[in-house]
Amino acid sequence: MPYEFKMDRRVAFAETDMAGILHFSNFFRYMEEVEHAFFRSLGLRVHEASAVGSMGWARGEASCRFMRPLTNEDVVELHLLVKEKRAKSIAYEIVFLKDGEEMARGNVTAVCVGRIPGEHRLVAVDMPTEVDEQVQVAPPTLFEGA
Amino acid sequence: MPYEFKMDRRVAFAETDMAGILHFSNFFRYMEEVEHAFFRSLGLRVHEASAVGSMGWARGEASCRFMRPLTNEDVVELHLLVKEKRAKSIAYEIVFLKDGEEMARGNVTAVCVGRIPGEHRLVAVDMPTEVDEQVQVAPPTLFEGA
Amino acid sequence: MPYEFKMDRRVAFAETDMAGILHFSNFFRYMEEVEHAFFRSLGLRVHEASAVGSMGWARGEASCRFMRPLTNEDVVELHLLVKEKRAKSIAYEIVFLKDGEEMARGNVTAVCVGRIPGEHRLVAVDMPTEVDEQVQVAPPTLFEGA
Amino acid sequence: MPYEFKMDRRVAFAETDMAGILHFSNFFRYMEEVEHAFFRSLGLRVHEASAVGSMGWARGEASCRFMRPLTNEDVVELHLLVKEKRAKSIAYEIVFLKDGEEMARGNVTAVCVGRIPGEHRLVAVDMPTEVDEQVQVAPPTLFEGA
Repeated sequence: MPYEFKMDRRVAFAETDMAGILHFSNFFRYMEEVEHAFFRSLGLRVHEASAVGSMGWARGEASCRFMRPLTNEDVVELHLLVKEKRAKSIAYEIVFLKDGEEMARGNVTAVCVGRIPGEHRLVAVDMPTEVDEQVQVAPPTLFEGA
Repeated sequence: MPYEFKMDRRVAFAETDMAGILHFSNFFRYMEEVEHAFFRSLGLRVHEASAVGSMGWARGEASCRFMRPLTNEDVVELHLLVKEKRAKSIAYEIVFLKDGEEMARGNVTAVCVGRIPGEHRLVAVDMPTEVDEQVQVAPPTLFEGA
Repeated sequence: MPYEFKMDRRVAFAETDMAGILHFSNFFRYMEEVEHAFFRSLGLRVHEASAVGSMGWARGEASCRFMRPLTNEDVVELHLLVKEKRAKSIAYEIVFLKDGEEMARGNVTAVCVGRIPGEHRLVAVDMPTEVDEQVQVAPPTLFEGA
Repeated sequence: MPYEFKMDRRVAFAETDMAGILHFSNFFRYMEEVEHAFFRSLGLRVHEASAVGSMGWARGEASCRFMRPLTNEDVVELHLLVKEKRAKSIAYEIVFLKDGEEMARGNVTAVCVGRIPGEHRLVAVDMPTEVDEQVQVAPPTLFEGA
């Protein structure tokens, strides 16, 4: 379905911290990994660079609730759902599951941005047509509390 | 003041991504760095480990709004404020400023947790007395929209 | 064969830097990932922690030659070979291949270490018998220049 | 002196791993940080991007010997020395000191590279004149074993 995607990710040793658990900043990296895998599954690219400029997806906001810790070599199922779609942005919800149990739940808004080479300023732009055509919003019944 | 802390942080090359900007996951790392620097400034430690167990601060939730990108070698001022304090947790707000302009604004709730060596389960516990005595909540007028 | 291991690894966006390529520090993380996957494939664990102390594999030295850059979403084949085995350490060579072409070549020596909880000092110790029995040294003919 | 540079760096919590120590991949990041700080101290930039292409410093090889572990909040002195200079590359040695004691010693060769936008291929080029004029090779007596 072009509104959800699932992948397994194994926690790497280097991603743990001295508390013995996956460092919380890495949950945000995992969210991005499943988002990019979702795009790949649809034949879409998340970042394009050429001599005339580049297009990509910047983060507008990101949040995560951490219920249970993950540790080295844990395999976590990342379950991505498209929560909202606007002309220039897509909002995702990502549930982190281990053995069927919810470990964390994150939300991230990706904003389609363009940039002229050599400039640091990013400008929000309408997403490419092929993205807009393919990515769909998940039915509300799939979200927590529904 | 034991309810706020400021520090400068220079963006490192390795923290940028192929879009040429500070990767969003690193904003969360910076939030933790200023939180720990705040603790150090009060003579407090964020993590204690001994043969009988360990005490630390796990993340309950974390969020960030990204307004403007940061790039390599930028110096960002991290401005931490204590937003809320409960028996077992502290909520912080962190504003990211560059040349006085707000680049991002994050919130994180740190939960005081204990653990028995060899066990992965973390249990929320009352924060140590010396933390409770020193860390104060910032006046509401210091927050956005006040 | 208990002297070699191969796995594919896809470069994540967050692992690239503003030069548009996999940051060189991540080649060292990939080396560790394939080493740990090698151990898992043999039913061995790289890190054990209990109330009486912990055992793990610290790095004695690590090096890498970088021939060609890797970039976002590249799939790299990590080819690990056991180069040397001593009582307390194992030396690995890892070749990074993309479409059959060598992108980088690394070497790392892992030292078996033990530690008493609460102490920071690591002490080199003889590797566990099950590791010593299973891990074998690769034939010299498998290495570059052979 | 334009052949050496020293800076202090505090180990961040997120840089530790479940063994309770600075993850070895971060020693390589620290090496790059002190190299870039060295360049900044000379008014030089390590990375330039424009519409006609970009110039930077890629790693040719990197290695490190790890003698003693570093842990959370340790302050390590990074001592960089220029070991060799060629038309297209600079070799550095970096000593990691804590309380005067050597914790690790690394070597890295940085190769000056150029790139056309949109292409992934990096080409070694002669370093800019202002770099060549300023960066000098340290006297051999400053190196270990001298």
